[in-house]
Amino acid sequence: MKNAIDDQTIRFFSSEDTDAELPAATVVGEKGRNLIQVAQLGAPVPPGLVLPSGLCALMSDSNGELPPSVQKNLLRSIARLEEHTGRRFGDDGAPLLLTLRSSPPQAMPGTLDAIVNLGLTEAGAAALAEALGDDRAAWDAYRRLIESYGVHVLGVEPAGFEELMTEALEEGSAEADHELSGGALEGLAKQFRSHCEQETGAPWPADPLEQLSRAIVAGYRAWEHPQALVYRFEEDLDSLPGTALVLQTMASGTARERSGAGSILSRVPSTGEKKPHGHFLATAMGSDLTAGIRMTDKVEALAETMPEAYRELLAWTDKLERHFRDAQEVRFAIDRERLWLLDSRPAPRTAKASLRIALELEAEGICDDRQALLLLDPTVIDAYQYPVLDKTDAPPALGKGLPASPGSAVGQVVFFAEHAAELAGQGIKTILIRHETTPEDIDGLKVAEGIVTSHGGLTSHAAVVARGMGKCCIVGAGGIHIDYLLNEMSLGDTCVKRLDWISIDGNTGEIYLGRLPQVPPVLEGGIAKVLAWADAHRTLGVYANADTAEDARHAIEQGAGGIGLCRTEHMFFEIDRIPVFRKMILALDEVGRSAALAELQPMQRKDFMDIFRVMDGRPVTIRLLDPPLNEFLPKGIRSQTRMSRLMGIPVETIQQRTESLTENNPMMGHRGCRLAITYPEIYNMQVRAIVEAACIVIKEGVSVTPEIMVPLVSTWRELKMLREQIEQLIAQVCEELGESVPFKIGTMIETPRAAMCSRAIARYADFYSFGTNDLTQMAYGFSRDDVGMFLPMYLEKEILDIDPFIRLDQEGTGQLVRIAAEEGRKVHPGLKLGICGEHGGDARSIKFFHELGLDYVSCSPFRIPGARLAAGQAAVQEQDR
Amino acid sequence: MKNAIDDQTIRFFSSEDTDAELPAATVVGEKGRNLIQVAQLGAPVPPGLVLPSGLCALMSDSNGELPPSVQKNLLRSIARLEEHTGRRFGDDGAPLLLTLRSSPPQAMPGTLDAIVNLGLTEAGAAALAEALGDDRAAWDAYRRLIESYGVHVLGVEPAGFEELMTEALEEGSAEADHELSGGALEGLAKQFRSHCEQETGAPWPADPLEQLSRAIVAGYRAWEHPQALVYRFEEDLDSLPGTALVLQTMASGTARERSGAGSILSRVPSTGEKKPHGHFLATAMGSDLTAGIRMTDKVEALAETMPEAYRELLAWTDKLERHFRDAQEVRFAIDRERLWLLDSRPAPRTAKASLRIALELEAEGICDDRQALLLLDPTVIDAYQYPVLDKTDAPPALGKGLPASPGSAVGQVVFFAEHAAELAGQGIKTILIRHETTPEDIDGLKVAEGIVTSHGGLTSHAAVVARGMGKCCIVGAGGIHIDYLLNEMSLGDTCVKRLDWISIDGNTGEIYLGRLPQVPPVLEGGIAKVLAWADAHRTLGVYANADTAEDARHAIEQGAGGIGLCRTEHMFFEIDRIPVFRKMILALDEVGRSAALAELQPMQRKDFMDIFRVMDGRPVTIRLLDPPLNEFLPKGIRSQTRMSRLMGIPVETIQQRTESLTENNPMMGHRGCRLAITYPEIYNMQVRAIVEAACIVIKEGVSVTPEIMVPLVSTWRELKMLREQIEQLIAQVCEELGESVPFKIGTMIETPRAAMCSRAIARYADFYSFGTNDLTQMAYGFSRDDVGMFLPMYLEKEILDIDPFIRLDQEGTGQLVRIAAEEGRKVHPGLKLGICGEHGGDARSIKFFHELGLDYVSCSPFRIPGARLAAGQAAVQEQDR
Repeated sequence: MKNAIDDQTIRFFSSEDTDAELPAATVVGEKGRNLIQVAQLGAPVPPGLVLPSGLCALMSDSNGELPPSVQKNLLRSIARLEEHTGRRFGDDGAPLLLTLRSSPPQAMPGTLDAIVNLGLTEAGAAALAEALGDDRAAWDAYRRLIESYGVHVLGVEPAGFEELMTEALEEGSAEADHELSGGALEGLAKQFRSHCEQETGAPWPADPLEQLSRAIVAGYRAWEHPQALVYRFEEDLDSLPGTALVLQTMASGTARERSGAGSILSRVPSTGEKKPHGHFLATAMGSDLTAGIRMTDKVEALAETMPEAYRELLAWTDKLERHFRDAQEVRFAIDRERLWLLDSRPAPRTAKASLRIALELEAEGICDDRQALLLLDPTVIDAYQYPVLDKTDAPPALGKGLPASPGSAVGQVVFFAEHAAELAGQGIKTILIRHETTPEDIDGLKVAEGIVTSHGGLTSHAAVVARGMGKCCIVGAGGIHIDYLLNEMSLGDTCVKRLDWISIDGNTGEIYLGRLPQVPPVLEGGIAKVLAWADAHRTLGVYANADTAEDARHAIEQGAGGIGLCRTEHMFFEIDRIPVFRKMILALDEVGRSAALAELQPMQRKDFMDIFRVMDGRPVTIRLLDPPLNEFLPKGIRSQTRMSRLMGIPVETIQQRTESLTENNPMMGHRGCRLAITYPEIYNMQVRAIVEAACIVIKEGVSVTPEIMVPLVSTWRELKMLREQIEQLIAQVCEELGESVPFKIGTMIETPRAAMCSRAIARYADFYSFGTNDLTQMAYGFSRDDVGMFLPMYLEKEILDIDPFIRLDQEGTGQLVRIAAEEGRKVHPGLKLGICGEHGGDARSIKFFHELGLDYVSCSPFRIPGARLAAGQAAVQEQDR
Repeated sequence: MKNAIDDQTIRFFSSEDTDAELPAATVVGEKGRNLIQVAQLGAPVPPGLVLPSGLCALMSDSNGELPPSVQKNLLRSIARLEEHTGRRFGDDGAPLLLTLRSSPPQAMPGTLDAIVNLGLTEAGAAALAEALGDDRAAWDAYRRLIESYGVHVLGVEPAGFEELMTEALEEGSAEADHELSGGALEGLAKQFRSHCEQETGAPWPADPLEQLSRAIVAGYRAWEHPQALVYRFEEDLDSLPGTALVLQTMASGTARERSGAGSILSRVPSTGEKKPHGHFLATAMGSDLTAGIRMTDKVEALAETMPEAYRELLAWTDKLERHFRDAQEVRFAIDRERLWLLDSRPAPRTAKASLRIALELEAEGICDDRQALLLLDPTVIDAYQYPVLDKTDAPPALGKGLPASPGSAVGQVVFFAEHAAELAGQGIKTILIRHETTPEDIDGLKVAEGIVTSHGGLTSHAAVVARGMGKCCIVGAGGIHIDYLLNEMSLGDTCVKRLDWISIDGNTGEIYLGRLPQVPPVLEGGIAKVLAWADAHRTLGVYANADTAEDARHAIEQGAGGIGLCRTEHMFFEIDRIPVFRKMILALDEVGRSAALAELQPMQRKDFMDIFRVMDGRPVTIRLLDPPLNEFLPKGIRSQTRMSRLMGIPVETIQQRTESLTENNPMMGHRGCRLAITYPEIYNMQVRAIVEAACIVIKEGVSVTPEIMVPLVSTWRELKMLREQIEQLIAQVCEELGESVPFKIGTMIETPRAAMCSRAIARYADFYSFGTNDLTQMAYGFSRDDVGMFLPMYLEKEILDIDPFIRLDQEGTGQLVRIAAEEGRKVHPGLKLGICGEHGGDARSIKFFHELGLDYVSCSPFRIPGARLAAGQAAVQEQDR
């Protein structure tokens, strides 16, 4: 009951007299909470009231009037304001003027714009003119009351007021409202009032208390505006109790002399440098400032014009920064040299500036490393990772695709991976352009500066490989038409030939003709410092997706704690292996397959030995063969003929086998553990290679616990059968080699069914790795290779906020992850949980994974620093809750 | 607490003296419950005890001994048995002999086989021989005790006993044990005992009470056998409290004279005719009967040999049938003309027999229609629906595929749909053989007698179309190699040419060379009667998937309550429409597309008018365009050239457009509502056609409420946008035509994400139709077109019990349906829920849908009677709970 009473209590605040208690934003709103804090510090805030969110629900049936209990409370609170200011509300003399604003618990649409100068009567305006000796300011206040009240409470269209203002400006030959005379403004105010009466068919509500009551009801009712309802539904905010309102003494800079409104930032937003920054507009209110009607002055100019007020402003800005432990933007008004602070909020800043601000605030002792960590823009790392194009003198972009891997690249166009490889030998920088890339293009991909594809989505082969290599890549650039025969492409009206220069921007997806200059990334020591903070606080492990010993070394340099995904299939694409692997596929029976696999086994064993040696002591998670066999066979008659010659196999055999392996929807076809159920010998070879490799390096003194991962499980029976098979083989190999190898056997959770049936699967798994790429594909029914056909339109029409392959969809796919994690841990509390999809490198997704209690995320080595930062931030945010 | 006490109480039963209370099967097990019921009727059951499941948990730490409290209880209960029978347990004279068996709450593995003749000591056996004047029977009893106790309690391998028995038979020149002399059996018993002592290294537990205690502990512990644990886990039975045990007075027919064991059925299992049926084995126990060592007699022979006992048996069989309200199989023993009933259970029967039995039991007043309904095998309808092959003189099958649509077909082979159509004109019956079929083959599919494909799964195009037409179909017959050029196929070593005769069995998937005779289905009036029962009880609607007025008429004949799925795309494949639809696809811009759509619109309107008129007053659910546009374009250069000629469009244009629409995974590509987001004009045309059609028929007096269904939604924003668009258009068309059309707008739930986000989607839907085909595909990540690559192996290795496209997977996919249904109804209580996947025709799946509270299922017209029956059964089963 205490809460219920508290939540309906009207709060009073002023620089001299504010309760020490700080209510929650759900009770007094964000703005209310901010003002109460600023007032508690003793800063010169105009005194005011916060009408709490608890009253919001009472308004729906109020018929435009305040419920009597609220009215009584309100009168008592206003009396306190009157006592404090020495003025009376609604007085015809020098009245107490109030402004009413919404104070929702967080920024959202459907809130009330400010209603200003409540309490001002026509007689009051005249008296005010006299008292101030400034009839312009007085009548301006009155016309602003009528306009804001008319629009927001009476529902009059704003256009009518604007027309009358335009007429008045013409009549007065003025360019802006502050140039109008007092008389002109008085006339305008009266026209505004008649306009309201005409539009509503009712007399102007002259009684100030009635005005105020109706304004308050309107303020609360804005909460139920259809647009607001939709927004809260969309953002899942239905449970919020309502909006609060702030009713505050007017502090306006509209007087003709020594008055104005402005805002000041404690650090420069573009660089983060500690230096006052901001602007000021004389004879104005804050709203004029944001409306951008007139040119503003730099705030530093106040040092000359109003040094006292400016000194005071700087002192308070500094104090507020220390109080809120963050760079602040303070909005203020000066009323005839008297400074009023209107609010104080975190200052805007670029990603780069966020780094300097965080480092300096921490160094200055204004905040500790935990708080500083939260001040960092998670993308700050990316900004320091890749060279960017200098577009100062750039021509317009030729075309655009999806930005698949960040950075930039400048090079000469080639259309075949082989060409890129050839030219690389001659030291020529190339950009490889293809419809799509395949694993066979790998040698070209490795050497090209950048990659552009006309098809494919953000998780297509080209995109995944490029991100893995930290290489700039644009995919799904539908405007490109490639003519492979002529070795050229058209992009709009432009024809680009082989060896023409182009420049590509992996951050925007833009493609430029010619050689644009590249600005190299400047790595700052500060990055290392903030990453050390993040590492000290984070509880989430950050592993790398790495397929080779070289990848593994790079991953460790970037700070990886282990390998979360080692894809064994990439090993089969090496030039000396693919023919043997193809022999396996073309074999007619198990005997033939086993013979080919026996040839591959020592090669794969060597790969694992190399990786284990590099990772010494760190976890290595190895995924057994995943893609459909068809992916390993050449497409097109030319490649098939070449393969036929090389292998001495009739081309018809190759074609027949390729055809028999062709699937309508290979993503949902014969792949992953399904291959192992039909061809057990493949996984047997791989497991043998892993365990033999482990035995050998253990004898060398290397510490290794292979984590063997079974992909694409959809039922526990698959995992049970394969686990038994793998365990038997491990025991056998260990016995043969007289060594004992610790190991874990786990599975990918990448089909929705596996997630739903986690309780059963967890009994047979030592760990789960969520394959959120495939999980996203199957949850949405979006083929990541084809999503380019409609995804751009989905983003344009705002059906999706962001590509769900980039940021995990928490509402749907994320719920599958949550269910699988929770249910799995219920039956198997020690279950190790990680993710190895592309989402492992996305800051917002990482926060979600941290909250779910996963043990680690795994991402491309290049994304590891960003992931460490995000994991640190997530941990601190959680501690703060 | 009452329950806790009850659940540990040992129950006594006999024909004279049994508590009236009937405990649950979870307490006394299925067997215990059955025996208590039979005893309550006063039937001659050997008196006995039920040791309840509540004691099971007490045994785990008991160290092979009974806890003292249980021991005390047991002694008291045995005393009651002793009093009742006048014999003493463990007496060396004429002892009370007991048999111990598991009585689990339902049939499951890991239960204890019977331990017989407990209480028999060596001295007792000798005394028994004297008392019976039958030393053979006495020593046989003793050796059976040792053997069963040795195997099940002491863990001695059965092989040792079998060897000793073989030796004894050889020595005694006997063929079976009943031919051995008393002396030989005495020797054998003693050998058995020594064998046990040798194997266990411990003396034979001669104390009968110790024997009994250890047997009981072993019986309870069988519950924890690994195999039992696995089974209960797999079947989700972990919550069962344990097994009960039955300890019953021995009633054995092993005496040499006027004794034996048998079983009798009240109705003939193959026909359902009311007539005693069964068999009898002289000088035997029940277990000898099932072991099948010796030839049995027909049970009717007892009328001659033991008329009194037989008369009594018939009378009791009749009484038991009336009591259990179902045909019974009664197992019995006769001990020197005294009849003992061992148990009574539902008699086995064929699907056809189940119909006759249900009809006659109801007619005889033995059960009511509700009970009779539950006695029907749900597949009984299928058995009456299609002609079957008479395989009496059939050659071995040539090959086998997946049985995709039931029934049978005999016809001449063709390899092209066009040939089937041509030959049909000449009255020639054909069977169409293809790799796979496409919508373009529709004319051939319509006229062929049957369809065979070498590729594709149970939900491939051929399979779905064939089931829709009620036509026999076999798919995925991988052994077939078609040579389209030579117009022949090879199947194993056989070459089958065009116009050769073959016969196919859609129930087994078998393909035969030649013309096998077909047995026409005999439709019985009984079917109509049981369907009327089902309709009277069912609460689940049964709708049809129907795309044409003709389908709709057929659906109504079969008893459909509405159309749950009208696929609009099939309408575009009609010969006069496909060119126009292709023009739409090839159009470069919206103007071109709209022009083509305007041509199609009156045709589609006509289709809807015809359907609405047929369905007058019944719901019609229309799915807007679903498949990817690429499906409508011809594949292969020949078809493309023909299209080019027909449409006057360069073949290159056709190829280019086809290529640009080609997707890697079309099932998860640009289809369903995604088409409507990118090409709004398509759905606009369809909605206009629907609403105009409705306006026109409403003017004629037809009653219609179109239910417009948006396919493949994965986020509520798609549905919101399309709903607004559709609503606007409906309002506009209604205004134009001056008519008002009631309508519903709903969506398919067929992506896992849609199911998970049901709370948000339900706000914009008047109804959901679960597309469980696609939902299964995406939940498992199984492409239904490709699943044939590994599904057979999955079934063979028992990773799957059944193709999940045939029967809904309740653990995974079904949970998505459940979540979507529950969450959707939470925010939208009136939400209409149905399913329109293939599962709508499967009895077990229908039961699940009924339990989830769906409003209807929709299936092919041919499956409607079966669905009605299953829905009726589900409703009655639920009422019974």
